[in-house]
This record gives sequence, C-alpha cells and structure tokens, in this order.
Amino acid sequence: MYKQISSSQNKEIKHLHQLQEKSRLRRKEGVFLVEGVRETLLALKGDFKLKKIIFCEELFSAEKMEELISNLNEKPEITALSSEVYEKLAYRGSTEGLLTLFESKELNLDSLKFKSETPLLLVAEAPEKPGNIGALLRTADAAGLDGVIIANPKTDLFNPNIIRSSVGCVFTTPIATGTTEEIIDFLKIKNIKIYAAALQASREYTKTDYSGASAIVVGTEATGLEESWLENSEENIIIPMGGEIDSMNVSVAAGILIFEARRQRSLQH
Amino acid sequence: MYKQISSSQNKEIKHLHQLQEKSRLRRKEGVFLVEGVRETLLALKGDFKLKKIIFCEELFSAEKMEELISNLNEKPEITALSSEVYEKLAYRGSTEGLLTLFESKELNLDSLKFKSETPLLLVAEAPEKPGNIGALLRTADAAGLDGVIIANPKTDLFNPNIIRSSVGCVFTTPIATGTTEEIIDFLKIKNIKIYAAALQASREYTKTDYSGASAIVVGTEATGLEESWLENSEENIIIPMGGEIDSMNVSVAAGILIFEARRQRSLQH
Repeated sequence: MYKQISSSQNKEIKHLHQLQEKSRLRRKEGVFLVEGVRETLLALKGDFKLKKIIFCEELFSAEKMEELISNLNEKPEITALSSEVYEKLAYRGSTEGLLTLFESKELNLDSLKFKSETPLLLVAEAPEKPGNIGALLRTADAAGLDGVIIANPKTDLFNPNIIRSSVGCVFTTPIATGTTEEIIDFLKIKNIKIYAAALQASREYTKTDYSGASAIVVGTEATGLEESWLENSEENIIIPMGGEIDSMNVSVAAGILIFEARRQRSLQH
Repeated sequence: MYKQISSSQNKEIKHLHQLQEKSRLRRKEGVFLVEGVRETLLALKGDFKLKKIIFCEELFSAEKMEELISNLNEKPEITALSSEVYEKLAYRGSTEGLLTLFESKELNLDSLKFKSETPLLLVAEAPEKPGNIGALLRTADAAGLDGVIIANPKTDLFNPNIIRSSVGCVFTTPIATGTTEEIIDFLKIKNIKIYAAALQASREYTKTDYSGASAIVVGTEATGLEESWLENSEENIIIPMGGEIDSMNVSVAAGILIFEARRQRSLQH
C-alpha cells in the first residue's frame, strides 16, 4: 500500500539521517524532521507544512495513520520502514514509530506578530545547549509568552535535540532569530523595553515593573550578555543570590524572571 | 616524586573507572570521585574528607599541587597519571588535570541542621535526570536554601554527572535523602509546612505565604507527586500555565517556586 524501505543503505534513508545531523542541509533544503505523535500534531497546529510521513508499520498502526492523515488538506508522501531501519533512524528507538518531514519557516523578526499591545518577550543570547533552548521554550509556552527571540543562535531551531527537549514547544511559541543588533533595533522600533539580566546589575528583578511591552533578555552562563544589551536596556536586572557559587542554569533564571513578570501582570487584572 | 601510572590497564585505574560508573561500588566503599579544581575546593569547603589526589603532571602544575595540598591537615595519597591515562579517566578530557577521591557522608535526614528558625527547604521526588538534580542544586545554592531533600533518589548523589552538572553545588547545600514516608515524618516533627506543587492544585503559588518554616515539594515531570504528599501538605500549589502543552522542566518549576518564597521573605525584612 505504501512505499516500503527495508534497507538502511537506501538513499532516502541516508538522506533523512543527514537531515537529522546537519543543520546546513536542513537550511539548504528548507525542511526538518519531527519524531513522535505529539510533536507532529503540535507542528501541524503551528501551521507547519507536512511534506512526508515516514513510519514503521509494526509500531504505528493503520488506524493511527488514518487518523493522522484524515485532517490534512494536502496528502503527504508516505513511506513505510521495517522496524530495523526505523530504529536506526529514530532517536527514541521503538517508542512511537512516527517520523515526519516538515517545511521550515523563516524565523525572521518581521514574522513576529503580537496580539497584545503590551507583549512580554524572552530574548536569549546564544544559548549553548539544545536542552537549555528546549527548557526555555517549554517555559515560554507555559507562561504564554508573546514570543521568544534567539540572538546569534548556534544551531538552527529545527535541530532534533531542540524539538525533542522542547517537547514540541518550538512549534507553539512565536519564535524569531537575529543578530543582537537586529533584535535591539526591532525592539526599539516596536517600543518594547529591554530588561537585561546581568550579574553586575544592581536592580533586583522583583523591583522592576514589567507591565508595559517588555523583553526580558538573558545571556549565556559562561559569558553573560553582550555589552550592547546593557547599554540599550531600560533597566539591568539581577536575581539576588546568596550562595557559594551564584551560578544558575540559564533556563531556570529565565523562568524566574518570566514568572515574576507574569505575577506582576496578573495583579493588574 | 609521586607514584606514577602510565597504563590504562593498571588495576588502580580500572578501579577508579568503576567508581565513576557504579553507584553501588561507591556506596560500598563510601567514596566518590570529583573532577576539577573548583569542584574539589567546594568539596573541601563542604567538609568532605579528601583521601586521594589523581592528577596529570602535564595539565596540573607542581605549583598548583603545592597550593592545593598546603591547606590540608592530612596529606592524601597522590598519584600522577600520564596524559593518555588521565584523558581516558576524566570526563572533561584535558581541561584541568585534577581528579580527587573523597569520603562520602551519610545523607540521612537527621544530619540536616537548620540555622534559621524558619528554614526554607526544597524536596524533589525521584528526579529522573542527573542534569535536573544538578540544576536544582545550583538553584538551591543561589537561593541560599536551608536544605534540599531528595525523596527516593534513583542514584546516589555523588554520581559524577550530578557533581558536574551541579558545578559542585552538591557540596555546598545541606542535602539529605529518604523515602517519602520518612521525609513527611521528619518535616512534621520539625513543624515544617509542606507546600506540594501539583498540576491539579487550585491554589496559585503566588497566593501562598511561605514565611514560616516551609518545604516546597516538586515531583517528576512524568508522574508528578505521590498522593501522600498531597494529603499531608499545608497547601497544594500550582504554577498557572497558559500554553499549548503546560509542561515545564522540573528544575525551572522548582526555581520559580523557590524564588517566589524568597521574594515574599525579602519583603518582610
């Protein structure tokens, strides 16, 4: 019924594997791979265009496939893999049996549209680890942020590790990327105030008012934020610490700042 | 000058490698390995007893060694490794050239002593990933918590991945482990109120008063908290979420709760 592949040496399989591994290839072809049912449904919900379904018949049943494709306007290409080939391709092994190929979107700043007149944004500068970006995106989803902007990303955001560690939140949150300069310009034009988190700042994060259009900006754990953030901010804020080391995980620090802004905003309603 | 080892097949090296890998062996021998200068200094500061230094002469200079041992009351055994052997043993490869072997401490509940009459504690139930425990411990250090209690831990806390991801905070924060039942009993005897984080709770975490002796309790991402926490709590609290997925990383959620308690407490001083 479907096109069948039962050899790992198959050209298409090799190509899919390269798409998982190579950011450059994903960018060049404008596609990315998603693993899992929940993640696939979230990508569809996020209006990404599904181009191809790759599945393992032993793991992903005909009924499930029926259900998945019944709601699609355009039928994608469907390929069935033997479980051996599937398991080599999938990160999570034999859990779900579903891989999907989607068309990328341009994540430029102009694509960000805000429903709120006082949006709350998170900007993260060059986060090192996919796991941290995933955690940031989960927090952004939970907080209902108006957008997440990644400055100078070290990988494309459709990296399989980011999709997986974000449990699909990479599809549910409005995201953009840009250089530091581009982002600062964008925020200024939109009249969004910059609150830069910095260890050398003196203003406690709880003493700052985030009720207007606000972007909370966090840097890397190793080097903090580029100077231009601190110079162009409305305020530089600090999470006061009282330990031996005073080094928090960047996604934890971002979570604390975002939910303080949320707390303040909920008091006004 | 020091005992030299230049073969990975050496019995001592094999034994050290097993101590890195095997929780059971660490427990049986009552020791654990630490990698890195900062982590070693924090373990010393945390009053752990240094039993052995294993180092690579090409990476860790004689002056540094002099400095390290000058402040020790009891001189530990010192072994020098060739860089080839060292690199096989170390996780971080050729960064620092220092491994140290410490004596474990019993992390039982009775060992927790609180300076404050209204301590603020974090209890985490069976956190799955060493990286999450590491992030929790960094947050605990930054917040100056009076203690962290791990319920039903899945590994010993001197697991190399926990030491590394906590950047040594595992040594700076008072820590204990126990079963859920033991911990609930302990908290009751000490008159410490339990605030259990639960997705099905109705009380927003910001509406709860943490000014008394408080234990904030978080569960696993997959299954949440055991029922007995919810039954024995002063209040069950929720971080209100407004996204598609409503699933936060456990260390981010713990950070948000802890720093809300800190915020409230700082208003009272």
